[in-house]
Amino acid sequence: MIYDAIIIGAGPAGMSAALYLLRDGKKVLILEKETIGGSIASTPLIENYPGVKAVSGSELTDIMFDQIDELGVEFELEKVTNINVLEDDIKEVITEDNKYLGKVLIIASGSAYRTLNLPNEDKLIGHGIHFCVACDGAFYKGKDVAIVGGGNSAVINAYSMSKIAKKVYILQKMDKLTCEKDLINKIESTDNVEIMYNVDVLEYLGDDELTGLSIKVDGKKKKLKVDGVFLNIGLIPQNKFAYDVIDLDERDYVISTNTETKVPGLYVIGDSRTKKYSQVTIATADGTIAALNAIEYLNG
Amino acid sequence: MIYDAIIIGAGPAGMSAALYLLRDGKKVLILEKETIGGSIASTPLIENYPGVKAVSGSELTDIMFDQIDELGVEFELEKVTNINVLEDDIKEVITEDNKYLGKVLIIASGSAYRTLNLPNEDKLIGHGIHFCVACDGAFYKGKDVAIVGGGNSAVINAYSMSKIAKKVYILQKMDKLTCEKDLINKIESTDNVEIMYNVDVLEYLGDDELTGLSIKVDGKKKKLKVDGVFLNIGLIPQNKFAYDVIDLDERDYVISTNTETKVPGLYVIGDSRTKKYSQVTIATADGTIAALNAIEYLNG
Repeated sequence: MIYDAIIIGAGPAGMSAALYLLRDGKKVLILEKETIGGSIASTPLIENYPGVKAVSGSELTDIMFDQIDELGVEFELEKVTNINVLEDDIKEVITEDNKYLGKVLIIASGSAYRTLNLPNEDKLIGHGIHFCVACDGAFYKGKDVAIVGGGNSAVINAYSMSKIAKKVYILQKMDKLTCEKDLINKIESTDNVEIMYNVDVLEYLGDDELTGLSIKVDGKKKKLKVDGVFLNIGLIPQNKFAYDVIDLDERDYVISTNTETKVPGLYVIGDSRTKKYSQVTIATADGTIAALNAIEYLNG
Repeated sequence: MIYDAIIIGAGPAGMSAALYLLRDGKKVLILEKETIGGSIASTPLIENYPGVKAVSGSELTDIMFDQIDELGVEFELEKVTNINVLEDDIKEVITEDNKYLGKVLIIASGSAYRTLNLPNEDKLIGHGIHFCVACDGAFYKGKDVAIVGGGNSAVINAYSMSKIAKKVYILQKMDKLTCEKDLINKIESTDNVEIMYNVDVLEYLGDDELTGLSIKVDGKKKKLKVDGVFLNIGLIPQNKFAYDVIDLDERDYVISTNTETKVPGLYVIGDSRTKKYSQVTIATADGTIAALNAIEYLNG
């Protein structure tokens, strides 16, 4: 059994590619290691996707999944560990559980949350350290939390959290926020949010549950008592399985031109590829382009 | 009065650019010569825009307009005739009625319907010759119509028209349809649709109202009695006003890399630019990228 196309990753990029391929009658398998929707699924509020008014990331990506589910996509929740290119450019995709074959392979595995790489971090994730306010914010109703970061995700999460928590600290490494201006205005006029600049997080406090952070602000060390911390400091690409087959840049993103790679019938889209901006619109366009390229490739 | 950004064209590309610019607090003017939504507004059914299930083109673009209207976009229904680049890279946009100045100019003027360039065509447009089934299809309830073309737009329009008309002819120049396969299956199993291949349309019949077509099928001339004809044979770019300022390719599309042009602060997006595929997803991504580039440019 050889699929027309195997897509690694069920975020907006991968699901958009599936939508176009399925509408052309192709047999499509999507492999996803964690959750439908990818990293955007954890965003509490999206207001900049054209054609859809205020929506959560999970709501938006659930609709995308419905669209491909109705067209008969095959979906498996499995982690890809390796890929190989066989004779006639057939792609072999090896997961922790199975092996699959596809004429086309589309890598849309995106990025994962970046962490601070401090001692105790792995142990405290889920016990005070979180990434997604939409997922875990409700645990901190009436409590004090810190958001680490200063971009759009951090500030949107801080704003959402301000409705739930007693007090929200934004801990920003730089001397200003890097998010959109309307978000800056919104967050600066929110009473229970305190923005701290030039902050280094030095240590997670607490053994089994986080009790606070040791931080350095403008060179001075201090303790910040918080019940939870949300890390919103960017993403790292999830392309390790592709090392042997395609070119990666110095940050482990895949280098691709117009979604194509040096392997015929192998495409890279969304947050897996080297690009300047990371937005849902760009991911869906990538998926569209890769699928239309793949259809040309499959139809000869 | 100098706008932060002037956008020419209120299709998905231009409105997406406006959305991102407005959310960053920029002062934005959109100039549109015809209709909100651009050419996609006339599509009766869109099923391949991720995150939005079956929707008409006008419904989808009306939502996009609401999104930017709520953020305070300025909108004028005026046709642009010329653009100039003044001192300090300020852009002057001249319309049939006014002159406007902008620090950034985004060209998103898209494409217009291609016609057959036959005698009587201009006179009969609106009197038997149409482009948009969603707009004008209802005039032909219970009547016979021809759709000229064989791509996605033509076949989607033929399918919509089959619900309204008595008989629908698809007149395709080539020996096969070039639309998505699921559309081919759908249209081939529609009883009152007849697909004719290798067709040249020679003449529009009728003086003040179309009464039929003179066509050549497989080299044989014949008359086809129809009450209306819809032309769905592609698009031509609407970039004439930009001739003096930027580079166009041999088909009059604008050559741009990553939405940028050789003029600082001047961007080209959507169906105005040279590209392989024309899809709403790609237009919204273009708008996103141009706006983020423009924000960097404006913020220095």
